[in-house]
Amino acid sequence: MKLYVSPRAPNPRRVQMFIAEKAIAEITEINLDLNAQAHRTPEFLAKSPLAKIPVLELPDGRHLGETRAICTYLEGVVPAPNLMGEVATERAFIEMADRRVEFYILGPIANWIRHTNPGLAPLENPQFPEYGASQHGKLLENLAWLDRSLGGQDFVAGDRFTIADITAFCGIEFARLMKFRAGEAGFPALQAWRDRVAARESAKAG
Amino acid sequence: MKLYVSPRAPNPRRVQMFIAEKAIAEITEINLDLNAQAHRTPEFLAKSPLAKIPVLELPDGRHLGETRAICTYLEGVVPAPNLMGEVATERAFIEMADRRVEFYILGPIANWIRHTNPGLAPLENPQFPEYGASQHGKLLENLAWLDRSLGGQDFVAGDRFTIADITAFCGIEFARLMKFRAGEAGFPALQAWRDRVAARESAKAG
Repeated sequence: MKLYVSPRAPNPRRVQMFIAEKAIAEITEINLDLNAQAHRTPEFLAKSPLAKIPVLELPDGRHLGETRAICTYLEGVVPAPNLMGEVATERAFIEMADRRVEFYILGPIANWIRHTNPGLAPLENPQFPEYGASQHGKLLENLAWLDRSLGGQDFVAGDRFTIADITAFCGIEFARLMKFRAGEAGFPALQAWRDRVAARESAKAG
Repeated sequence: MKLYVSPRAPNPRRVQMFIAEKAIAEITEINLDLNAQAHRTPEFLAKSPLAKIPVLELPDGRHLGETRAICTYLEGVVPAPNLMGEVATERAFIEMADRRVEFYILGPIANWIRHTNPGLAPLENPQFPEYGASQHGKLLENLAWLDRSLGGQDFVAGDRFTIADITAFCGIEFARLMKFRAGEAGFPALQAWRDRVAARESAKAG
């Protein structure tokens, strides 16, 4: 299978880390240069109509987009270690945790960076810097919740490592572009969790 | 079970429509007045730490948040009719479609409305009207994709009704607040699909 990615982009990294946790070897990565608009060529739009990465090319030739949907497919192909829940109720609670960190942590981080960092201007045009700054404010509120939560449990969704840790980790690491460090920002439990996740072999992926 | 909702809010409506499609009778709806900040009371924050609705109270007393996670749970409890896919590969492709309409249709609609409609000022503070207007522009680009897609298939994820139709429909209907009509905006296949979905009994929910 082929996986279309781009260096430093948080969403491809989520899939790369998911693949590394499952030690799936038979996937070839293809890097796209987003600043050169490689995701907007007619050839790539045929694979991903809204110009989004990552995209996975399946053995039957179909193209599957959207980070979490790719993970759902891979979880079916390689069930162990389980990262998304074994039965419907557990799957639902892990999905809740994953969506919370995707929408309220990774989302504000991405909008903060895309709307305020000059380096992202080619991808976010026009930028709205005041909106971006407001997203930083929302991020800090939401990180306070996550920090409290991680003060009482070892991982984002509870007592074991799941896809929700991958989503949160790739978000937090993307925020390093803005010199963000959880400990310096006043979130010690978040920093301790981040350091534990960063020590995993899969954190080197992407 | 209890479901915390609010009138006219698109995300609770997604769950209400999902429940109606499955004809689940044993769920009691509890309405929250968002303008009165009923979602920010200590009592509700204990159920939903980020003040989001909908939230489902399970028979064991736990609270499950996040629209799509609630649907994952309900699909497990009441499998028929299937709305999210039978096996991992189908689940992944339906999730891809659902995420695309959630992120690139419902998302821009919500941001367009929340940042430009004075009626939403109590919920989105501060509003950034120019950012909101830019979201309308992105919405129109993304609707052009959805209109093309629906020109070639009957439903958002393919040839049968799924959760992705519910997500897209609740988004499009929320845009009526802004006088949006798909046909008038130049999207005939989208309008025809919208009218087919609106004729379903479940469209009356919420």
